[in-house]
Amino acid sequence: MRSLLSIREEEGTVMKNPGLHDGPSCPAPAPIGDGVRLGHGSGGRLSARLFRERFLPAFDNEHLQKAEDGALLQVGGAEVVVSTDSFVVSPLEFPGGNIGDLAVNGTVNDLAMMGATPRFLTAGFILEEGLPFPILDRILAAMSSAAREAGVVVAAGDTKVVEVGKADGLFINTTGVGTVERGVRPSPLRIRPGDAVLLSGPMGCHGIAILAARGELAMEVELESDTAPLHELVDSLLDQLGSAVHALRDPTRGGVASALNEMAVTSRTEIVLRDDALPVPPAVEGACELLGLDPLYVANEGILVAIVSPDRTDDALAVLRRHPLGRGAVQVGMVTGDHPGLVTLRTSLGGHRVVDLLSGDQLPRIC
Amino acid sequence: MRSLLSIREEEGTVMKNPGLHDGPSCPAPAPIGDGVRLGHGSGGRLSARLFRERFLPAFDNEHLQKAEDGALLQVGGAEVVVSTDSFVVSPLEFPGGNIGDLAVNGTVNDLAMMGATPRFLTAGFILEEGLPFPILDRILAAMSSAAREAGVVVAAGDTKVVEVGKADGLFINTTGVGTVERGVRPSPLRIRPGDAVLLSGPMGCHGIAILAARGELAMEVELESDTAPLHELVDSLLDQLGSAVHALRDPTRGGVASALNEMAVTSRTEIVLRDDALPVPPAVEGACELLGLDPLYVANEGILVAIVSPDRTDDALAVLRRHPLGRGAVQVGMVTGDHPGLVTLRTSLGGHRVVDLLSGDQLPRIC
Repeated sequence: MRSLLSIREEEGTVMKNPGLHDGPSCPAPAPIGDGVRLGHGSGGRLSARLFRERFLPAFDNEHLQKAEDGALLQVGGAEVVVSTDSFVVSPLEFPGGNIGDLAVNGTVNDLAMMGATPRFLTAGFILEEGLPFPILDRILAAMSSAAREAGVVVAAGDTKVVEVGKADGLFINTTGVGTVERGVRPSPLRIRPGDAVLLSGPMGCHGIAILAARGELAMEVELESDTAPLHELVDSLLDQLGSAVHALRDPTRGGVASALNEMAVTSRTEIVLRDDALPVPPAVEGACELLGLDPLYVANEGILVAIVSPDRTDDALAVLRRHPLGRGAVQVGMVTGDHPGLVTLRTSLGGHRVVDLLSGDQLPRIC
Repeated sequence: MRSLLSIREEEGTVMKNPGLHDGPSCPAPAPIGDGVRLGHGSGGRLSARLFRERFLPAFDNEHLQKAEDGALLQVGGAEVVVSTDSFVVSPLEFPGGNIGDLAVNGTVNDLAMMGATPRFLTAGFILEEGLPFPILDRILAAMSSAAREAGVVVAAGDTKVVEVGKADGLFINTTGVGTVERGVRPSPLRIRPGDAVLLSGPMGCHGIAILAARGELAMEVELESDTAPLHELVDSLLDQLGSAVHALRDPTRGGVASALNEMAVTSRTEIVLRDDALPVPPAVEGACELLGLDPLYVANEGILVAIVSPDRTDDALAVLRRHPLGRGAVQVGMVTGDHPGLVTLRTSLGGHRVVDLLSGDQLPRIC
């Protein structure tokens, strides 16, 4: 039997999301050529291929095969979750945050989505010669404050410096270690037909805030990145609903669409979204219309997707809404068994379309 | 009481290593200006100041204060060592290895020096658009093979892509998780006057191999990087000598001199080296003479410094020499209580000089 992933790629020519590709014929993604392209960093189809064709064969093991936000390890008799993420966002500072709190929150959230309690971070800095100290200091202060807020200790670090023009100001890698305190861990493998698909807040704020900070919007937007640590939201959900929380994911690079696609493939279910339920703030909608972007693919750094048992939908929404970061929680769709591995969108007019992985990037260097 | 570190800096004008600084008056290091300089990545004095003045205050905690190769953490009831390192070596490939095996071995060795058994690695890749796949594939193959050799699993990874000219081919962060299996861990705090200072093999091979690969030597050198995983060497030492192994360090960036300086400061002892005992291969010596470098500051990636109880010196040397990576093991000096925090070198003619931390870099981008 062919894997779902390969089925989807072969059928890619008919499944594309109109309006998001270069031409009306929606060609299949170009074969990977001789080198790395920007799209390989998109979190979309090219990223998946790069991982599957080059990284996975090199490091073949059960942890990487799961393609989760982190790895669950048995270390010295303890269950530990480890997750790593490099941050290359441009610009380094933007409304609502900077690369520092983004790097802390990003890894804290990856641990939380695995059902782990974030404990420790390591931080690796690659500094470009000439980076002004006031900028570095603001970034370190933001990291420190984000770490305090998330209750994690930055326990080990490393700095390297490269010549002017050999990096872009500053790149940060954060790697997180969390502990598993609960018996049942959320995992895409626990998603079942019938489950409710919830989103904890409005979509697209981070990506559009970055675009605005780059000066790429011809309009003024009053929008901040939503970067925030989601561990408390996850804690509340797991404390109140336990194993009724089937899967969690923070829809960062590649947006809600890419996160849901990964979950649909892993769980071999279809995820059906309702167009009129998607929480898109007016500023995000306006910017997306202007630039021809789809908010479903715009990065978020402070919301989560929760897939929960249908009989607990209202409880889950109530728990989310009690937390400041979950006030805007809504149900955006449901899980079916109809088209395993697909994400589809039903419009209020009764139409529906496939919400596929993009080939490359809508927005490079967003995190 | 002032800390040893501050005493050393204030007295810096008289303690410098002649021939390694700009002028005969050996000025104190320039105050840190408005931004990052290449020297901040040297592993020397500027690196230490950057860490102490900016990173340590931001993330103040007991783990970072120890300034060891990694952090010893209590995670879920287990003792775990975590270490992180970013690799920015230029060129990406060089005689004896590439950035891939360097990144694996580097973190494996940092864990081993903490007395931990390396178990898992995470790998974060920052790829420059246009990096040819054949190069990436060779690097991944080298990582994979190094991980297998060291018995570690690459359990989680991340890739980001930045535009042409925004990185230099490829940067890799590896973060390692190891377990502590033994009751007594080597630590610079356990160094005592009288201890023997051993080196497991020849000095300077990695740094000079990188210079040769850059075409910066006007001579031909037959030299390969010594990049290698040192965990077996450490295992043998700890198995055979137990708590008589007081401290271990891999003298990478900044070379043997910088590693010993850190150990002397932490242990508040003096480390006295014997000039005629230093194992400098002819090719390293020739290249260093040509370029005005001191082999004591040239990076190594496959040797370790072991500081052991004096009554076990011969046993330790015998254990090291039984392993292929320790065949060239020698005693290079001893520990005294005379000048706490200093490393000094006795020459065969009876002279002696302080082997200080360099201010900045002999060789940037060496690892």
